[in-house]
Amino acid sequence: MSGQKVAFQGEHGAYSEIAALKFFPNSELIPMKLFQDVFDALHNNSIDYAVVPIENSIEGSVNEIYDLLLSTEKKITAEIFLRVNHCLIAFPNNTSITRVFSHPQALAQCRNYLKKRNLDSLPTYDTAGSVRLIKENQILDAAAIASKSAAKFYNMTILDENIEDRKNNYTRFLVLSDEKTSPSEKDRTSMIFGLKHMPGSLFSVIREFDHSKINLTKIESRPTKEKPWEYIFYVDIEGHVEEDTVKSTLDKVQKKCTFLKILGSYKRGIIN
Amino acid sequence: MSGQKVAFQGEHGAYSEIAALKFFPNSELIPMKLFQDVFDALHNNSIDYAVVPIENSIEGSVNEIYDLLLSTEKKITAEIFLRVNHCLIAFPNNTSITRVFSHPQALAQCRNYLKKRNLDSLPTYDTAGSVRLIKENQILDAAAIASKSAAKFYNMTILDENIEDRKNNYTRFLVLSDEKTSPSEKDRTSMIFGLKHMPGSLFSVIREFDHSKINLTKIESRPTKEKPWEYIFYVDIEGHVEEDTVKSTLDKVQKKCTFLKILGSYKRGIIN
Repeated sequence: MSGQKVAFQGEHGAYSEIAALKFFPNSELIPMKLFQDVFDALHNNSIDYAVVPIENSIEGSVNEIYDLLLSTEKKITAEIFLRVNHCLIAFPNNTSITRVFSHPQALAQCRNYLKKRNLDSLPTYDTAGSVRLIKENQILDAAAIASKSAAKFYNMTILDENIEDRKNNYTRFLVLSDEKTSPSEKDRTSMIFGLKHMPGSLFSVIREFDHSKINLTKIESRPTKEKPWEYIFYVDIEGHVEEDTVKSTLDKVQKKCTFLKILGSYKRGIIN
Repeated sequence: MSGQKVAFQGEHGAYSEIAALKFFPNSELIPMKLFQDVFDALHNNSIDYAVVPIENSIEGSVNEIYDLLLSTEKKITAEIFLRVNHCLIAFPNNTSITRVFSHPQALAQCRNYLKKRNLDSLPTYDTAGSVRLIKENQILDAAAIASKSAAKFYNMTILDENIEDRKNNYTRFLVLSDEKTSPSEKDRTSMIFGLKHMPGSLFSVIREFDHSKINLTKIESRPTKEKPWEYIFYVDIEGHVEEDTVKSTLDKVQKKCTFLKILGSYKRGIIN
């Protein structure tokens, strides 16, 4: 995977970059400001892969990614799970810290930690960007909450590690590309479909998956504001679209939907 | 509703504050830094009501609110829908704008607008906070994207209105309090429950609602990281827990769940 261009949203040291590096260890990693920028680069073919968070507690909105997935021709070709480990990062030999910069959700996740140490919270738009902020502005009385990589990238000191109040904090990322995936034994298929008049129609769709013994691993509804009685569903199932059972079940499901868009079939990521 | 204390997350002029004012026009509105602060104030009884976004495109994570709802004793007692109207805000008579500060999602929502005008995007953690930023730092070559209220609060000029690329952009807010609600003809009930082994168990729960002709208006699954084969569901239905059909159906549903927590029954908000 050497020399391939992989884009992510955020600054160097962002959790998205760590996820991308985990999956593409020898690639060229390209930070972009907005999720839309990442999708644009994908559509322009100026990058080979995009790595975006889909179920997350730090990086931003799942909804925004689903909106972007709805209008892309590219496919989900892999997924990555990343354990989120927050560090307290500052200038070296710093003993006078009174306040901490980070993304509001990272601050919230380390709330008990900050409270015990009587540290004031200062929200910013980004975890890694907070490290850059204190570095560039030479702020000596503040630390940032971000990843170990962010500390390394900006050559700052890690004062403390694993400072999040609750452990088991994972983020799920998707890899988007033009690649073709083949069925393995451990795949997942992601889709978006539209239904009229929940729950009757939802019930009949779930019944199809149930009859075929296909496991759902995610279901999420969202009202379409344009048509008050229509719903959009984001659904993940186990299996690959090229498997017969999946294919025939999706054919039945499609007949019950106002639309069905397969976002991709890909090997399931490992939580480790 | 005069003199009541209503807390929201964000700065003055935040969309959460606009939603709160729409519902509690004569209350004292208290801005708080984190969602957790809002819930803490609710638990300390230092406020009467909390207004928090639950399905949104601007204010932050739904997941975080659901986590907080899972551990609160307070109930959802109302909901508010708010149309999101973005404004371009700057110092008066400003003709030299080259860059625009705002929350990444607000920037993304106004992307075509900014592109056409060749304006550079600078992400911050908050829409209203961006207005404060350019005001306090006397930044003359930048504008902020935020609400009309934010412009008014910081006494800044609205250069342009409704600049979002796609209209029909609504955010749904919940009101949390100790109030008791009575059944009306147009209620919604929100709940969180746990299930083992989707989809068989999900199918059997949805069948209960289907049999009772109870409309689902939202369904969202989320894996519990601790137990790989258990799922948590966020579900909204039409009706009030004190109605016989709802009550008897929820009794049946509860028997199929690892746990069931009713978050509240409340009058459905109006989208206008």
